[in-house]
Amino acid sequence: MARELHLNLFINGRGHHETAWRHPASTTKALSDLSYYRDLALAAEAAKLDSIFFADQLALGDELAHAARGELEPVTLLGALAALTSQIGLIATASTTYNEPYNLARQFASLDHLSGGRIGWNIVTSWAPGAAVNFGQEAQVGIDQRYARAHDFVEAVSKLWDSWARDAIVDDRDSGTYARPDRVRRAAHRGSHFSVAGALNIPRSPQGRPVFVQAGASKDGRAFAARYAEAIFTAHLTKDSAIEFYADIKTQARALGRGPDQIVILPGLSAAIGSTEAEAKRVWEELNELSHPSVGLARLSSRFGGHDFSHLKLDDVLSVEDFPDPSQVQASRSRAQSITALVARERPTLRGLLHSLAGARGHFTATGTPEQIADIIEDWFVSGAADGFNVMPPILPTQFDIFASEVVPLLRRRGLFRSEYGDGTLRDRLGLDPVQSQFDPAEPVKRSA
Amino acid sequence: MARELHLNLFINGRGHHETAWRHPASTTKALSDLSYYRDLALAAEAAKLDSIFFADQLALGDELAHAARGELEPVTLLGALAALTSQIGLIATASTTYNEPYNLARQFASLDHLSGGRIGWNIVTSWAPGAAVNFGQEAQVGIDQRYARAHDFVEAVSKLWDSWARDAIVDDRDSGTYARPDRVRRAAHRGSHFSVAGALNIPRSPQGRPVFVQAGASKDGRAFAARYAEAIFTAHLTKDSAIEFYADIKTQARALGRGPDQIVILPGLSAAIGSTEAEAKRVWEELNELSHPSVGLARLSSRFGGHDFSHLKLDDVLSVEDFPDPSQVQASRSRAQSITALVARERPTLRGLLHSLAGARGHFTATGTPEQIADIIEDWFVSGAADGFNVMPPILPTQFDIFASEVVPLLRRRGLFRSEYGDGTLRDRLGLDPVQSQFDPAEPVKRSA
Ligand SMILES: Cc1cc2nc3c(=O)[nH]c(=O)nc-3n(C[C@H](O)[C@H](O)[C@H](O)COP(=O)(O)O)c2cc1C
Ligand SMILES: Cc1cc2nc3c(=O)[nH]c(=O)nc-3n(C[C@H](O)[C@H](O)[C@H](O)COP(=O)(O)O)c2cc1C
Repeated sequence: MARELHLNLFINGRGHHETAWRHPASTTKALSDLSYYRDLALAAEAAKLDSIFFADQLALGDELAHAARGELEPVTLLGALAALTSQIGLIATASTTYNEPYNLARQFASLDHLSGGRIGWNIVTSWAPGAAVNFGQEAQVGIDQRYARAHDFVEAVSKLWDSWARDAIVDDRDSGTYARPDRVRRAAHRGSHFSVAGALNIPRSPQGRPVFVQAGASKDGRAFAARYAEAIFTAHLTKDSAIEFYADIKTQARALGRGPDQIVILPGLSAAIGSTEAEAKRVWEELNELSHPSVGLARLSSRFGGHDFSHLKLDDVLSVEDFPDPSQVQASRSRAQSITALVARERPTLRGLLHSLAGARGHFTATGTPEQIADIIEDWFVSGAADGFNVMPPILPTQFDIFASEVVPLLRRRGLFRSEYGDGTLRDRLGLDPVQSQFDPAEPVKRSA
Repeated sequence: MARELHLNLFINGRGHHETAWRHPASTTKALSDLSYYRDLALAAEAAKLDSIFFADQLALGDELAHAARGELEPVTLLGALAALTSQIGLIATASTTYNEPYNLARQFASLDHLSGGRIGWNIVTSWAPGAAVNFGQEAQVGIDQRYARAHDFVEAVSKLWDSWARDAIVDDRDSGTYARPDRVRRAAHRGSHFSVAGALNIPRSPQGRPVFVQAGASKDGRAFAARYAEAIFTAHLTKDSAIEFYADIKTQARALGRGPDQIVILPGLSAAIGSTEAEAKRVWEELNELSHPSVGLARLSSRFGGHDFSHLKLDDVLSVEDFPDPSQVQASRSRAQSITALVARERPTLRGLLHSLAGARGHFTATGTPEQIADIIEDWFVSGAADGFNVMPPILPTQFDIFASEVVPLLRRRGLFRSEYGDGTLRDRLGLDPVQSQFDPAEPVKRSA
């Protein structure tokens, strides 16, 4: 079977550019208005995208004065969108650092039931340093410890999701047998961070468990992704960086005995699309003109764990000496690394750096006609940089509407993208093997190896 | 204004009788099927009920073989139902013992936005002893400690919900001002159990916060309810017990400076309704005939914290000596107390006791024609036993359909119950004062005192 391109719509504020909220082409609805998300989800479903996705932080960001903050909580929002859509995959972010496995396992199992098997979990360790003090901690624990906890967390919830056999519920009114107790087992998890007796109090969900999505890109993050992730969101400023990442992940996965097609890699793509290149360029210019440097500076600072950049001037030409050593950063190490690499490569002014990060916070940005954007997508897809894309329109909903009505049909014409949804769950759509059950008879051959 | 009767539909399995799942009149849908809950919610909305409600336990109950277990998780389910309904209140249970305030505050604020101000939170300390081992604890902590944590928890989330002023978001595209940072304050909570810096990362919700619902009935539970609850679910086997409870709560509330109309007391009512009394009686008989004694015994045992009753025979006449001292019970003290009171009063056989508890797990059961049920409701309402009822149909959906189509119109004809929804939030419908905001100017007079 030909490789299939996968497209996820990442819904963020009124668009991924930090000034989108005040651009005339963005929605006028409040970020707390369900109808805004419903319409976007239905538009993505009409375009036959694989899924939509919501990020999540466990603290209020800075720069409230000039940046749109305070979105809905993803798990509850996905509950609502599960009811309002019927086909599209729904991916919510939830943290392994600030949750309990039993609670998270239940909520995602419940969402998977509510949606008929369309749920994905973006597993994050919560990079934002400000979250810790909302959970009784003095300060954020380091990356290593966060990932150690994440490993144990994923093991615990996996056992909970596997605690009911598919055929555990009999529901036989005549004999009075509701379920078969021998087909429900305790999780009996005893790990370094969590002890969870189980069983889960919710039956096995349509997908067995949510699709595991991951977005960490540091060394620890990649190792974690190679082991658990079935889809990866990743941020690259260049195609070369995406190719390096893609090869590294697939190699690591293979070394762990996983089929490389069992991890779908989706780099972020923030495209400004216009009927001419000039029109597309104007989109970025308009957005950049609306920006407040303080917003970008605050974000830059938070990526580097709170480092103070306030002595720099907007027209200063930057060098790597202006930044702390990214390998020591505990907040968002991979992002810090790609920013310093950009500085070393391009020697931008501070204003230039903030503009390029404002676009999509370190993700690849593109500018062009629908043809040109389709060309980039095809190029990355065929040259080992991507299995698909995390679509991050700079302005919502208008730039997504153009993507859906003009880029997607081109991808179809080129035989890269589906015209209709097939049957099945989100897992099936992503080409992932079914989740094994401890109650299944041992399989003679693994389906993908 | 005349006092208004309030009605909440408590949705539990295929009905509140433990054998409802196998009775021919109950739904054939799976307990994980959203359409089942959607249809019930819409039926309750069509009947203009105040709200629907879901209970929650953080452990799988025993007796899976003969009892219907494994329902959806209430918070995610409410997300879906918020999208599928437009008027009815939606109340979910969530635990103060096994959650973090920041996570719970976000999810309920988000639900309140999603539903346009229709959310209630049933605040529980989680009586089920089996939950502890799912959260890394050796054993359940005692009632006192659970309530101490609950106090601190409610204080913490209340500050989080109050961290944004109503007018914090300006959303002024021209000036580039999204929000007014001086109208968003840290929660800065430092309590005995929780430290939460805040602010919440979600704007103030339509109701300010969810309506506080409570269902504890022990001494600690009543004190907690008198202080925080705005609606109370409560279980009584007799009208006298309900009257005692009602008077006690309203007196305690008044002593705390709260208006007695600011706590809506809703005893559970599990009514089997038939066109004749004989037909109604037959409903209970049919349900009881379907019962497995082991299910009732397991529940009885869990109410008493795991006490072993297995030496008793079904035809043994019981006395209080057969039970442990209920004032020492750490699991569900109030329920243990009302069960021993019943035993002292009626001296039932074990079979008789199990049957009467199977009906509605210690709530009031009634049997009769629509007229007779309406009479009971009116009687309790006018004699200081109830402000309304927690409607617990023994079989769902059919016994609720009869309640909605036959009892509700009688209550309307008697001028007790609304014919249409008014405007406003769930709080408004329950006759509750608006939630104060720390950003409001100090009010000269309290609206209810
Ligand atoms: C598209 C994308 C979305 C992300 N969403 C979140 C998120 O919602 N919450 C979060 O804490 N981190 C998010 N991250 C960050 C990563 O999950 C990761 O925590 C961060 O990059 C730090 O880990 P690392 O140093 O291993 O990369 C996202 C990353 C990407 C590329
Ligand atoms: C109608 C009703 C519903 C309840 N729902 C729950 C529930 O969902 N979860 C729970 O742990 N306890 C529930 N309870 C129990 C109480 O919240 C309380 O925890 C229990 O009665 C023990 O506390 P107490 O001894 O103070 O009453 C419910 C009680 C009633 C009357």
